[in-house]
Amino acid sequence: MEISHIEHIGIAVENLQEAIAYYEEKLGLKCYSIEEVPDQKVRTAFFKVGQTKVELLESTDPEGPIGRFIAKKGPGLHHLAFAVDQVDAALQTVEERGVQLIDKTSRRGAENLRIGFLHPKSTFGTLTELCGKE
Amino acid sequence: MEISHIEHIGIAVENLQEAIAYYEEKLGLKCYSIEEVPDQKVRTAFFKVGQTKVELLESTDPEGPIGRFIAKKGPGLHHLAFAVDQVDAALQTVEERGVQLIDKTSRRGAENLRIGFLHPKSTFGTLTELCGKE
Repeated sequence: MEISHIEHIGIAVENLQEAIAYYEEKLGLKCYSIEEVPDQKVRTAFFKVGQTKVELLESTDPEGPIGRFIAKKGPGLHHLAFAVDQVDAALQTVEERGVQLIDKTSRRGAENLRIGFLHPKSTFGTLTELCGKE
Repeated sequence: MEISHIEHIGIAVENLQEAIAYYEEKLGLKCYSIEEVPDQKVRTAFFKVGQTKVELLESTDPEGPIGRFIAKKGPGLHHLAFAVDQVDAALQTVEERGVQLIDKTSRRGAENLRIGFLHPKSTFGTLTELCGKE
């Protein structure tokens, strides 16, 4: 398994439009895509910042993962996604190395990428995603 | 003000050596520097991941910012640092746009960079740093 770069940083927000306005008007970044991901009960907004994306996540359901996260910890940094070539192979590799997985096999995420999450219990508290085209 | 890329992601950890071992042995990343920053009461470890760095932060004082963060929220993602050319000018620009600052002017951070923080109240919950060589 080789991590090439940080694919994106996921940030939980309470109101997508207000957060987009902050990133655009205060920081000068440009939102290039808004997408709903029903499987994860979120609406997402993407900004390209050099090689990495900022992914804002607004919950579409209080019982979804982002709704529960915000209820517990408040809005803010949610997860860190590393880019790998082969997501399923990478998940298998880190599991063989003793990392507990949330996703044993990859599933389809935003931007039509394959994604899989490692469990924060195994990653010193950081919800960590492996992410790639295959 | 122009943000060129994400300079680093700051991650609060309880034990730097254990966290370094995770990033090296499970994810295959390589720690290239360990540095103490007395001003911020932290020891830091850096990993280069493409264009962006992962910065692990271990508190050297329970009353320091990382010690208090971990006591309140637990270990995990702590801050997001955007690279800008001129940190003081960028801080002034975002303040003029209505963003509340933690640092009105830049100070010296890890890796001898100029750094300045925006207040999470103004950034929808994400502790945000502007960071650069000047």
